[in-house]
This record gives sequence, structure tokens and C-alpha cells, in this order.
Amino acid sequence: MADGLIPGVRLYAKLEGMQNVGSFKIRGVANMVDKAPAEVLSGNRTLISMSAGNFGRAMAYICQQKNLKGKILMPSTVPKSRIEIIKGCGCDVELQPSANLQPAVDNYVKEQNMVYLHPFDDLNLIAGYGSMGMEILEDCPSPDFVVVCCGGGGLVSGVSAAIKQSGLSPATKVIAVEPVTANTMYLSLKEGHAVHNGAAKSIAAGLAPPFVGENTYAHVKKYVDDVVLVTDEEIKESVSILYKCGLVVEPSGTAAFTAVRCGKIAGVKGKTVVVVLTGSNVSPEELTQLVNYTS
Amino acid sequence: MADGLIPGVRLYAKLEGMQNVGSFKIRGVANMVDKAPAEVLSGNRTLISMSAGNFGRAMAYICQQKNLKGKILMPSTVPKSRIEIIKGCGCDVELQPSANLQPAVDNYVKEQNMVYLHPFDDLNLIAGYGSMGMEILEDCPSPDFVVVCCGGGGLVSGVSAAIKQSGLSPATKVIAVEPVTANTMYLSLKEGHAVHNGAAKSIAAGLAPPFVGENTYAHVKKYVDDVVLVTDEEIKESVSILYKCGLVVEPSGTAAFTAVRCGKIAGVKGKTVVVVLTGSNVSPEELTQLVNYTS
Repeated sequence: MADGLIPGVRLYAKLEGMQNVGSFKIRGVANMVDKAPAEVLSGNRTLISMSAGNFGRAMAYICQQKNLKGKILMPSTVPKSRIEIIKGCGCDVELQPSANLQPAVDNYVKEQNMVYLHPFDDLNLIAGYGSMGMEILEDCPSPDFVVVCCGGGGLVSGVSAAIKQSGLSPATKVIAVEPVTANTMYLSLKEGHAVHNGAAKSIAAGLAPPFVGENTYAHVKKYVDDVVLVTDEEIKESVSILYKCGLVVEPSGTAAFTAVRCGKIAGVKGKTVVVVLTGSNVSPEELTQLVNYTS
Repeated sequence: MADGLIPGVRLYAKLEGMQNVGSFKIRGVANMVDKAPAEVLSGNRTLISMSAGNFGRAMAYICQQKNLKGKILMPSTVPKSRIEIIKGCGCDVELQPSANLQPAVDNYVKEQNMVYLHPFDDLNLIAGYGSMGMEILEDCPSPDFVVVCCGGGGLVSGVSAAIKQSGLSPATKVIAVEPVTANTMYLSLKEGHAVHNGAAKSIAAGLAPPFVGENTYAHVKKYVDDVVLVTDEEIKESVSILYKCGLVVEPSGTAAFTAVRCGKIAGVKGKTVVVVLTGSNVSPEELTQLVNYTS
């Protein structure tokens, strides 16, 4: 990273925005679809999911690559560009108010025998994300901290499980980062079970699902060392800072960097810290609203 | 780089957009200012130069860091954001029609005893850029090709001289890339002397100075293996492609990547190719005009 970006920290960034389809989601979705029922893979049953962006985009891309049928329900408020990208891959898109998404998915599964791909709480999805943990250790063998954003918790589950189960770097701490206004995993650990919060909301839309998963909660409880919180203002400033470093990073994708930059993680001074920048799916139009370019 | 971005090529990108001040220029300017007269370094004489963006920004940053006096003449057509950034570092900015820039600089040198930092044709500047050649060989020890954009020719001079003089990778070919509408170095090699072309113009503004330098011409003639040309349309498409890979790259900065992507360099299939992405100084507003985000 640019000299002195976070003084006193040996900072490494995992640039998942450079992945095909612009985010880490492809790792999990590819593995999950590989394990789908045979009727899906032969094109006789339709895959369905719900997504505000990256998961849907990855699913649409895999459906296109493998010639599978897919339908994605998106919240009505989603930017038009994301709808177009998914439609461009040949997947159906249906808009629904956020609260209707899950019931509508359940209905398609029941009435039309579609196969639901859970956007975060699926063990094959989590295993796919584990690949990132192994790659991090390959490129940076003994990091002191690996910092990962947390929405539903799929990514941090896979990365933390891979790092901890590998036994390759036992001293590495894995830290999850949530928006302070969408702190479902933080609350889940506090309350001792996976909590729901219909009011979760953040500029980092990908980090604000209304609940964490049962599987992800179990992984985070077992493998993650701490959950820390960042504000929307801090996230927005990180989008600007990273943009000026030449990186397109969507708000959700900056959360891990934000936590280190804003001093939310104790003990990082003088340490080797890997932050995952999870995705680049933000349009130039959106960036004109987010980035303070001249200061 | 993203899987299959340029099929059949082992592509490495040197991300100079992540440098302080967003471009490679800082490497050369820092070295050039270090060698400036003592009266400059004591703050008693003012540095002057002309720039449409990156050079001026690097010079302003160094002046701010070292508490030196600086004045930068910019073409009247420059985006306002670039003026603000330079002024924000405490340097004077004066706007002039392009054709007046050099006479105005000469006048300040003559009338006010200012010290001129040439924006590309200076041996200390070129030596500073040489650091990039050494870094490339450190990270990628024996590349088959190193591809570098060429405006006035300072960067490709430094990189090629460093690689060839080092003797570390004798088989490496260094290729310079110019816009087809601003092909002064290409013409210079053809005609056997450094040529002027007042009509040079390109979407890659940083690659379209009205002439190449005498020093840069001599370096390119000696150390560069070929000069290839790319069109503005090809450059514009590369800005989109790289944006969707999560990288903010200004049009000039994509020229080397564009040459490889568009098949302008013979013999790259199956080879290890390093492209220098020279800078990230492009605003979100400019990107809304350049990037085709949804296709």
C-alpha cells in the first residue's frame, strides 16, 4: 500500500475487487453450484437466490458459464446498473421490497421447485471462501492479523476456518468487522445465539443483512478472535482514501481497512496486518457521491 | 490480474497509481529536487515547471514536504480538480494557453531567477524513474517484455536504461507505447532526431506533449526495443476494463496494457509481460464519461 497509509502498520491488502465479477463471492458460489443437485446442473431446475449485488452477480456469471437457469430477487432500491449487469448474464431479475425477499424465494422453491442458494449461510459457500484464507497464508505466511468484513458472515467464516484449521499460522488473529448500525454478529456473540435485526442498515449495503446465519455464527464463535465496529462516515472516508490510491473499492469492501485505519483493533502497531478489500462493484456515478477527490 | 484478462499472456501490472500523489512522477521529481541548487533547497529561489497534471502534482507534493517555493503553469483546459489539488499543496498555479506555457516558463526563469524543472527531459528525473526498472526486476526477475507508456519519454528512458544497464535480465525487451495521434517518439526514431509536433493530441493527455526530449530520444534510441502505437478508442476501452478489475487508471496510464491487450506487440503469447499502469489521477466525474460500466 502507499507509503504511510496507516503509519506503523505493515499493511497488506487482498484485492478481491480484481476477481472475475469484481468480488470474492465467485469463490463460494462456484463451489456451491458445483455441489447443486443433478437436475440443476442439467438445466432442468432453476437456481434462485436474493441479493443486493455481488452474490447475485457471481451467481449470474456462474449460471452463464455453465448454461444453468437462474433467478435473482433484488431489493427494489438496488441501483439500476446492478440489475443490468445481472440481466446481461441471462439471469431473471425480480424486484421486491426487502421484507418480501425471503418469502418470495420460499414461494418459488415451494411452488416451482426451484433450488435455493443461500447467500451466506451455506457450508459449501463457506468452504469456497476458505480458499481465500489459504491464498493469504501463501502470499503472507505468518500475518499477525487478518481482518475481514462481516455481513451474513460467510466470508469471515471461511477465511477464519481455513487459517485456524490449517495449523499453518497458529498465532494469526482473525478479526471480523461490521458496521455499527448493522452489528448482528457482534450482538450474536454477546447474546450467545444468531440474532435477527430487521433494522440493520449501512452505507455498506452488503454488510447489512437482517440476520446472521446459524452456520456462520457457529464458525465465527469458534474461529474468529474478535468482532469490531466501524461507522458509515469512517467507511465513506476509506472509499475516498483507497480511490486516491488507485483502487475501486465499494463501501462494504473497505470495512476491514477502515477498522485498522481508525484504530478499532488493539495491538496492530508494528504488526503485519492483512486487510481483505472484498469488492469493486461500485459505479463511477456512485463514486461521484462517495469520493472527496480534491482534498 | 483477473483470470483470462489477456488470454495466453502471463501478465503482471506495476501499479504506480498506488504511489504517493497517484503516479510514478514522484520517483523522478524527488530525485531532481534533491539535486536542485542550494538556494532552492533553502527556500530562496522558486522552482517552476509546466504540467497538465501528474508532474505538477508530484512537484507540489515535494515542495510541500520540503517547504520549498514552487510555481506551476498549467494549460487553460485542465480540469479544475487538478488545479485545486496542486494549490492545496501550497504551490502557485497559473493558467496559460498550451502554446504559451514554455515562453511563460522561460520568462519567469529570466525575469525572476526561478529554477526550471523540466517535466521529462532531465537526467536526474530519468535516473529517478530508473528505480522502477529495478523494482520490476526485483518482483519479476526475468520478464520477457516490460511495456511502458511514452509521452516526453522520461519514464521509458529511466526504466529501459535501468533494466538494460543492470545486466540482470539481458533477454528482456522494453517496449514504449504512444498514442497514434501523438507519436512523436515513433517519428523521432524514424527520422533520426527528436521531433516536434504541435498538433499532438490524445485522450491520454499526459502522453501528448508537443515534442520529445533530446535526452529521452537518446535513451530510447539506445535502450528501447520498439515503439508501438495505440488509438484513443482502445485506450478508452482499457480504462473501462481496468475499472471493472477494481483499478482506477487514468487514460495515459492504460497505454502499456492497451498495447498488449490489442495485439500491438508481436511475440507476447505464452510470455511473461509486465505492464506499467502509470497513474490513478482521474476523478470519479471524469470516469463517468470514460467507463462503460454495465456492459
